[in-house]
Amino acid sequence: MKEELSVVGKGIPKVDAILKATGKAVYGADFSLPGMLHGKILRSKVPHAKILNIDTRKALRLPGVRAIVTGKDFPWGLKYGFTAITRDQTPLAQDKVRYIGDEVAAVAAVDEDIAEEALDLIKVEYEELPAVFDPFEAMKEGAPQLHDHVKNNISASQHLAFGDVEKGFLESDHVREDQFTTQAIKHGFLEPHASVGLWDPSGKATLWGNKQSPYIVYRKLAMALGLPPSKVRVIQTYVGAGFGSARSDPFALDFCALMLSKKTGKPVKFVYSMEDVLVMGEMRHPFYMKVKTGMTKEGYIKAIQAYVVADGGAYSTIGPVSIALPAFFIDIPYRLPNVQYDGYRVFTNKGFCGSLRGHCIAQLRWALGQQLDMVCNDLGLDIAEVSIKNALHPGDETPSGYKITSCAFTECVEKAVEASGWKEKKGKLPPYRGIGMGTSSFITGVKLSGHNSASCVVKLNEDGTASVVTGATDIGQGSSTIVSQIVAEVLGLPIEDITINAGIDTDFTPIDPGTYGSRVSFYSGNAAKIAAEDAKKQLAEVASKVMKVPLEEIIFKDRKVFSKSNPEKGWKIDALIRHAQHSMGKESKSVIGRGSYDSGVDFIDFKTGRGNISPTYTFAADVVEIGVDPETGKITILNAVGAHDIGRALNPILCAGQLDGAWIQAEGQLLYEELKRDKKDGHVLNPSFMDYKMPTSMDIPLKNKHIFVESMDPDGPFGAKEVGEGASVAIFPALGNAVYDAIGVRIPDLPITPEKVLKAIKEKKEGK
Amino acid sequence: MKEELSVVGKGIPKVDAILKATGKAVYGADFSLPGMLHGKILRSKVPHAKILNIDTRKALRLPGVRAIVTGKDFPWGLKYGFTAITRDQTPLAQDKVRYIGDEVAAVAAVDEDIAEEALDLIKVEYEELPAVFDPFEAMKEGAPQLHDHVKNNISASQHLAFGDVEKGFLESDHVREDQFTTQAIKHGFLEPHASVGLWDPSGKATLWGNKQSPYIVYRKLAMALGLPPSKVRVIQTYVGAGFGSARSDPFALDFCALMLSKKTGKPVKFVYSMEDVLVMGEMRHPFYMKVKTGMTKEGYIKAIQAYVVADGGAYSTIGPVSIALPAFFIDIPYRLPNVQYDGYRVFTNKGFCGSLRGHCIAQLRWALGQQLDMVCNDLGLDIAEVSIKNALHPGDETPSGYKITSCAFTECVEKAVEASGWKEKKGKLPPYRGIGMGTSSFITGVKLSGHNSASCVVKLNEDGTASVVTGATDIGQGSSTIVSQIVAEVLGLPIEDITINAGIDTDFTPIDPGTYGSRVSFYSGNAAKIAAEDAKKQLAEVASKVMKVPLEEIIFKDRKVFSKSNPEKGWKIDALIRHAQHSMGKESKSVIGRGSYDSGVDFIDFKTGRGNISPTYTFAADVVEIGVDPETGKITILNAVGAHDIGRALNPILCAGQLDGAWIQAEGQLLYEELKRDKKDGHVLNPSFMDYKMPTSMDIPLKNKHIFVESMDPDGPFGAKEVGEGASVAIFPALGNAVYDAIGVRIPDLPITPEKVLKAIKEKKEGK
Repeated sequence: MKEELSVVGKGIPKVDAILKATGKAVYGADFSLPGMLHGKILRSKVPHAKILNIDTRKALRLPGVRAIVTGKDFPWGLKYGFTAITRDQTPLAQDKVRYIGDEVAAVAAVDEDIAEEALDLIKVEYEELPAVFDPFEAMKEGAPQLHDHVKNNISASQHLAFGDVEKGFLESDHVREDQFTTQAIKHGFLEPHASVGLWDPSGKATLWGNKQSPYIVYRKLAMALGLPPSKVRVIQTYVGAGFGSARSDPFALDFCALMLSKKTGKPVKFVYSMEDVLVMGEMRHPFYMKVKTGMTKEGYIKAIQAYVVADGGAYSTIGPVSIALPAFFIDIPYRLPNVQYDGYRVFTNKGFCGSLRGHCIAQLRWALGQQLDMVCNDLGLDIAEVSIKNALHPGDETPSGYKITSCAFTECVEKAVEASGWKEKKGKLPPYRGIGMGTSSFITGVKLSGHNSASCVVKLNEDGTASVVTGATDIGQGSSTIVSQIVAEVLGLPIEDITINAGIDTDFTPIDPGTYGSRVSFYSGNAAKIAAEDAKKQLAEVASKVMKVPLEEIIFKDRKVFSKSNPEKGWKIDALIRHAQHSMGKESKSVIGRGSYDSGVDFIDFKTGRGNISPTYTFAADVVEIGVDPETGKITILNAVGAHDIGRALNPILCAGQLDGAWIQAEGQLLYEELKRDKKDGHVLNPSFMDYKMPTSMDIPLKNKHIFVESMDPDGPFGAKEVGEGASVAIFPALGNAVYDAIGVRIPDLPITPEKVLKAIKEKKEGK
Repeated sequence: MKEELSVVGKGIPKVDAILKATGKAVYGADFSLPGMLHGKILRSKVPHAKILNIDTRKALRLPGVRAIVTGKDFPWGLKYGFTAITRDQTPLAQDKVRYIGDEVAAVAAVDEDIAEEALDLIKVEYEELPAVFDPFEAMKEGAPQLHDHVKNNISASQHLAFGDVEKGFLESDHVREDQFTTQAIKHGFLEPHASVGLWDPSGKATLWGNKQSPYIVYRKLAMALGLPPSKVRVIQTYVGAGFGSARSDPFALDFCALMLSKKTGKPVKFVYSMEDVLVMGEMRHPFYMKVKTGMTKEGYIKAIQAYVVADGGAYSTIGPVSIALPAFFIDIPYRLPNVQYDGYRVFTNKGFCGSLRGHCIAQLRWALGQQLDMVCNDLGLDIAEVSIKNALHPGDETPSGYKITSCAFTECVEKAVEASGWKEKKGKLPPYRGIGMGTSSFITGVKLSGHNSASCVVKLNEDGTASVVTGATDIGQGSSTIVSQIVAEVLGLPIEDITINAGIDTDFTPIDPGTYGSRVSFYSGNAAKIAAEDAKKQLAEVASKVMKVPLEEIIFKDRKVFSKSNPEKGWKIDALIRHAQHSMGKESKSVIGRGSYDSGVDFIDFKTGRGNISPTYTFAADVVEIGVDPETGKITILNAVGAHDIGRALNPILCAGQLDGAWIQAEGQLLYEELKRDKKDGHVLNPSFMDYKMPTSMDIPLKNKHIFVESMDPDGPFGAKEVGEGASVAIFPALGNAVYDAIGVRIPDLPITPEKVLKAIKEKKEGK
């Protein structure tokens, strides 16, 4: 049953909207300190080479240059990366460079122009090595080796099997094997990486930056700088969006800002150009996929098999997770008896790849979601009915061990069918019009590193307001608003009575792993709820004492605290807080609530793939209707309907924003975006937003209907779970299937450019 | 018994010493924001006048001027001040100016020079009024009236009586009545007031400034700006010392920085010149005192009576407290059966007066401590013996209701006598050498406003360190160090494992009234101890679980957590914190301790003067030995001994620093300092540190012996209580009595300049 709430569930504008809209929010690139120097990075111009010598003498003589660092300035031999075996990256290149753009040296100067000029005066002597840009080439014996610690450039691999796929395929009436590929794209956040480093005389290294997981950055900085963690402090500025590990990791600018600060005694600021951002890591992994689905003629899926090769670029970073996640997401949202997955992440001499909204899951769903449509088409079945037939239900446990608690997947499919006019349209649209369905299921947080718990402090103020110090990292998604709503709801306050920290400060903010894996509303939301309830309980005890009413009778509502049985009498909350703080003699205290939350889910077991990796799962069914211009190949989105089981919609405006964002980001990869590379040396051909074309908010389908199917999760804060990441995944096959429905040809390789569409139409006409 | 401790009680350098010594600590005047404007204040050049008109048009036309504010820009009619009836001051003068220096208008411009130039272009039309500069003149019928809300310029008065002084004088064998005066001095902090205001588009008014009670400033800003308190945020920078309410109150620069920011949309910075600081409030109140002491020939004090007129200057500020405190401190450190006090604080057309180390208590002790010596001399008694004979003892309750808990006053006198060679020297020194004794007793925190409780949060970090967010306001006295020591002690960590907030942020820091009344170590120290113990308890519960050892067996020591019965086994604290945070499934949590402390003492009852105003009291006995050069009148401090019952010396280096500071500040008022004024218009004649002569750290007596008499207070954190404020009070009569002992003449009026000494010597020789 849906509990009646006052603040949660309401479409409240973002609490930081005014500061952002008026340009007063201090983003990474806005942050400055007096006496600050400016830094620039020298990047490799060759794809693979030994560094024989770096001569900085001439650059250091340039007036205005204050210091230069190279790989030798980070002598700890410690490398940063996701796990011990993947620590293959150093703050600056030491012995080798591995892609065009790899960081070689950094300059601090009194202004950016001088720093830039100094880069040209640094002489790097290379011994060039053969390079490899194609992952299949890279896996061959005798291929150039990027790293010594792995064979055949296999950065990471993942194998997983449940049941017996061979048996499953035998039980199937129809089995198909198809190949699909996806391209390299970028996160496309509008604010480039920006950091200010200050290594002060007490030995503390403080970094201000636009990070999405400050505590992860803090750990990796300490590791790579050879500092005890307590000597590192990361302070998060406002963040111009994130979308993945490109904001979770420290990069060359962060290490260099600090090391150059240590050398000069001044704060040092780096702001990457968009060229820096587009050339360096992290990218979305390009995927090469061979997938196989077996189904009975009644529409029961008997087996799925996937073989994946992911192009990882030059370094590991989060690679082991990247190549494992697709495996872990195969067996949701359908009941699958037999599954096999074999994935390889391969090093190539290109910018490194990492996570991006729907981390490597969108790629495999692009393949599997289309193959499901193909199998259905082959068998004359309706994908919607097949989806319902195979759907997971509350109480299910998947072969991998996922415990399905709240689940309204069937309802999602039904609502999407109904709202899109699916039954009237599927297979019945005129030529060059098409409709397609895609589904997905997603985690709500995942235990990646040891640390998974979130925490929060809520302080009640004497004017009746509450100050919240959350570990939740708002990178634009609106966690500050969600957390504020939750605290306001618990305390019976309006949203304007909540003050919340605008950023994370690892020295003082309650610890929280940060923003990734769609964990924030659930984990940090629960921590905030617990902290607010703790504060409420303390103040309720005061109320119980002064009003002489049992504790369980005390109600907090509309800035008042009163007894359930006597709502007219009671105290204004500010007066009660002041009473607690001022007037209880030795018992006087300021009310400070604290909360910490962990779902207790299992750590991902990369070996067996077994365990419940998320406290709950979300579900989505998307239907897309398109038109194709047969003259130009241009695709127009005519109608988009998504039905999303997201638990409670904590804030419908923000949920819709997440879903619009999911749409536009998926649409970008599906139709427009591609990081193009030179075939001979792998350098990026379109490293600017002039040439790398992203859709903007103006491209969001006008008819973009979001249906919230509020399954009210038993463990989520007020019933909430993930929104917006799972949704983006479902859009991939939905659009692919709609294209097939419109032109009768399957386009397996992203992006679906007008050229490819025209070529497909032409070939179909020619009967190829 | 003195408990054996590891970190508390050790002479640890200040935790912020390196940043301060290397110039990296950001003080008020160092703080800046991008795009900041600079402000200057226009001050009245007449002592008393109606403002008829302010014409800012010409000033506004000066290129670079961005905005001007006058009293009319603060239209709320709300005035700031200590109590409702004393709210007689507005951010800028509205109808009237009341002293030369009173604030009339403020300019924001692109740089300081232009702002300064613009001041000259503002035309203020005054209607001059008769002015009054002498408080006795001001009290007369027909004198010019500064404010309408009081009669005869009596800003505040305080009357207090215990027992019956007339009866006491009758019972005495000897009664004396004498008069004493003290001069106006300034706090003499080396950093002028500095603030940056930013009124952002969301309506939040944020002030960065070097304040000593940010929460008090926050309340007063909200009141005077007509804002709800939650729309005001005060962020404390490093503070270049405080010494009193001159750092507790907001002043014109604070209001104007915010209002000019509101007008311009830019941050606005004010840095006062030292001339601003010396001309404006707050000063130490000049006192005119008539005191009377009655004693039996055995040396028992039977009655003390005091009549005080304090020159308050143009505004009330904390005046009611200023005139009341001397009354509340008469009956410590001696057992007094009969006391009467009548005090008047009077408005005059001069800069306003407020609190300064030993707030108005030093002045009265200057009189009473010398009169005690005079009575003893008259009766042939030894002041040391008389002090012991009349001393308060543990368990005593004074007539005013003070509960004496820990008290080693007698031991203080004995130790001072012993260490100074008192018995060998008193009355036996050669001509122009003298020795004198002074005593005092002091509060450890006082409940001035409703709010008295302190609070603190302690977060345990995964690297085994602790982050402390204290409400304690470090203004140079070292509270950050003391609080860090207390937390380290509780958690068994070395001091370097503690990270503490460098300043207060009223939005997020746990609330604490701030630094005044010698409350910080006791209140904030206790809050920190409770918070650390709360964190310790939570982690001990984890330890108890994982080690399978009863909770009460768990010991925290040397970064380890182990069982009392098995010290070899156990966990490193970092591993245990990570276990708690990572590995306890649903129970995983980040350990956050919270603490709030209130002593439960009574609010000062200004009417009856009854109640226990402090949780505990400190005691001091000082002996000073001097030489006087009969040719020049110059006084040289030859030896100084102070024995101080301060409870536990939490950090002997900082305690000694406090006592050295007490010495130098007292010495300044006793021998050198005076804010001199023109007789005709009251303007300050020496408004610079070139002309206003303060002693420096080089003038601290070389032989300055501090004896800690550690009475181990039952309620203080690890037994601590106040240090350094009470001590300064005892020095006043000690030095006065030494001068008398050296030259045989009493100099009742401060400062004791060489001119006065020479004159006294001359008059004595001439038999006057």
